[in-house]
Amino acid sequence: MTASVPRFRGVMSPVLTPFNADLTPSPSRFVKHCRWLLKQEVGLAIFGTNSEANSLSVKEKLTLLEALLAAGLPAAKMVPGTGTCALPDSIELTRHAVNAGCAGVLMLPPFYYKPVSDEGLFRSFARVIDAVNDPRLRIYLYHIPPVSNVPITLTLIERLMKAFPGIIAGVKDSSGNWDNTAAMLRDFQPHGFDVFAGTETILLKNMRGGGAGCITATGNVNPTAIMRLYKTWQAADADAQQDALNKTRAIFQKLPIIPAMKAAIAEKSGDAAWATLRPPLVELDAAQRATLMRELEADGFTIPDAAELADRA
Amino acid sequence: MTASVPRFRGVMSPVLTPFNADLTPSPSRFVKHCRWLLKQEVGLAIFGTNSEANSLSVKEKLTLLEALLAAGLPAAKMVPGTGTCALPDSIELTRHAVNAGCAGVLMLPPFYYKPVSDEGLFRSFARVIDAVNDPRLRIYLYHIPPVSNVPITLTLIERLMKAFPGIIAGVKDSSGNWDNTAAMLRDFQPHGFDVFAGTETILLKNMRGGGAGCITATGNVNPTAIMRLYKTWQAADADAQQDALNKTRAIFQKLPIIPAMKAAIAEKSGDAAWATLRPPLVELDAAQRATLMRELEADGFTIPDAAELADRA
Repeated sequence: MTASVPRFRGVMSPVLTPFNADLTPSPSRFVKHCRWLLKQEVGLAIFGTNSEANSLSVKEKLTLLEALLAAGLPAAKMVPGTGTCALPDSIELTRHAVNAGCAGVLMLPPFYYKPVSDEGLFRSFARVIDAVNDPRLRIYLYHIPPVSNVPITLTLIERLMKAFPGIIAGVKDSSGNWDNTAAMLRDFQPHGFDVFAGTETILLKNMRGGGAGCITATGNVNPTAIMRLYKTWQAADADAQQDALNKTRAIFQKLPIIPAMKAAIAEKSGDAAWATLRPPLVELDAAQRATLMRELEADGFTIPDAAELADRA
Repeated sequence: MTASVPRFRGVMSPVLTPFNADLTPSPSRFVKHCRWLLKQEVGLAIFGTNSEANSLSVKEKLTLLEALLAAGLPAAKMVPGTGTCALPDSIELTRHAVNAGCAGVLMLPPFYYKPVSDEGLFRSFARVIDAVNDPRLRIYLYHIPPVSNVPITLTLIERLMKAFPGIIAGVKDSSGNWDNTAAMLRDFQPHGFDVFAGTETILLKNMRGGGAGCITATGNVNPTAIMRLYKTWQAADADAQQDALNKTRAIFQKLPIIPAMKAAIAEKSGDAAWATLRPPLVELDAAQRATLMRELEADGFTIPDAAELADRA
């Protein structure tokens, strides 16, 4: 039995997965992007929704994780997404993450069948935990009903926390429903269950409520400013910081957000391949791209050291 | 270039996947069930929604398909589900099915990301077709928005048919929207696009509209009667047959239908292991089971030669 790494608190980014023109993942760009995020003190929630992770095979995910480890990036800063539709896949990915020393895993419920009962979801998580059978395992539940269409209810969380104390470590709440976040902050956070907001637009609210930080898409492009609010949420200018974050977020969010972030990185880094997406997602069209760049310009938005993200063969 | 097998018309069953107590698939029960279905002249839409296929890994699916082939079951009667969230998985499963000589594949769209554009879905299907690159490929599109939450629109079908004539072979329409089925019967069926109803409750309507048959859950338990209506839909008693099918279907459908079908097979075959489901699905509780058995009894429902489905070590 190895001691587990300290709990992660702060800002994590569901790391964008860069692709080559032939739609294979680009491990070299992935490593660069993760290294750059770490430099901004942002943690690596690799294989999240914004990573197009559900468009990747298990093997592709394992290969990308290996690339990060081989490049010497610290597993203690990684929280890979390991929840899939199929138990054997979730078990394999989770076991791999634990053995690599990752800080935790971010786990979607199985998301094809719906509606499913809390009992069925409880069994799904329990099966993974029993199969991995490792006290180092830390599971962050991934509640994102607008995409998964399979909610993780408060009742289910309570049952999981009782059955697997210490293992059930927290949540990414992407419900878009503050009442739900508030209930978790009130009932679960005091018992060692770390509540991460699913977007930086409620980071300040979440910190004031005792939360652990946020795991947010736009951490991929706007990490410095988001991290600053996390660190200084008790400062006098916190509300002004939050307003500025919201303004930038809104620019990305009114477009399909994954293509928009990739377009911004492609533009700012000068590496056009960054704009590539795997179907079913598609890149921004020319008009969308022009709007995005114009609005980012007006916002004074920059990606610090963007050139570090470019892969130049 | 090998000639493709003749188009399948008739009744297919999305074959239930039997599990052992440890939740591993049971290839021996799977082979028995498929052999029994073929004896009822029902085709094998293995790895469909009712197969809990999205709870299986790619490797488990390939192993189960191999078990059928090794047992000598005819690939020309098989239409495996091969559409997954991740392109590499969909390509691998589809390529395998084509190489095995399967009559076609039933393809879900990638179902995690939503909403997605028709352009993105077109690219998903096109990528699989281009990668498999085999003129024997026959794709049946799987339109099941109540579960996938990713519809395959009429516009998308039209575009796919134009781009890949012959390859795009038909649809399983599980939309529950007759207007949609009727539009496909009118606009696509005359051009070699076979419309299968997603449930036997509209089999007669579909046949009268020129459709190709149905691919239906309850084909797993009530194949003989469904097949009889398919064969005799022009007979005088067709409406009465349809009414009887609907009555039986309703008994299963008011419960979670996959657990209900498995419970019925477990009961009628005397093989209790048949009631096993993989999470997130759960078995019927005692009260549900009692209701089901009582209502099936009152309906005069039987599973012909049910003992053939039992796996007795």
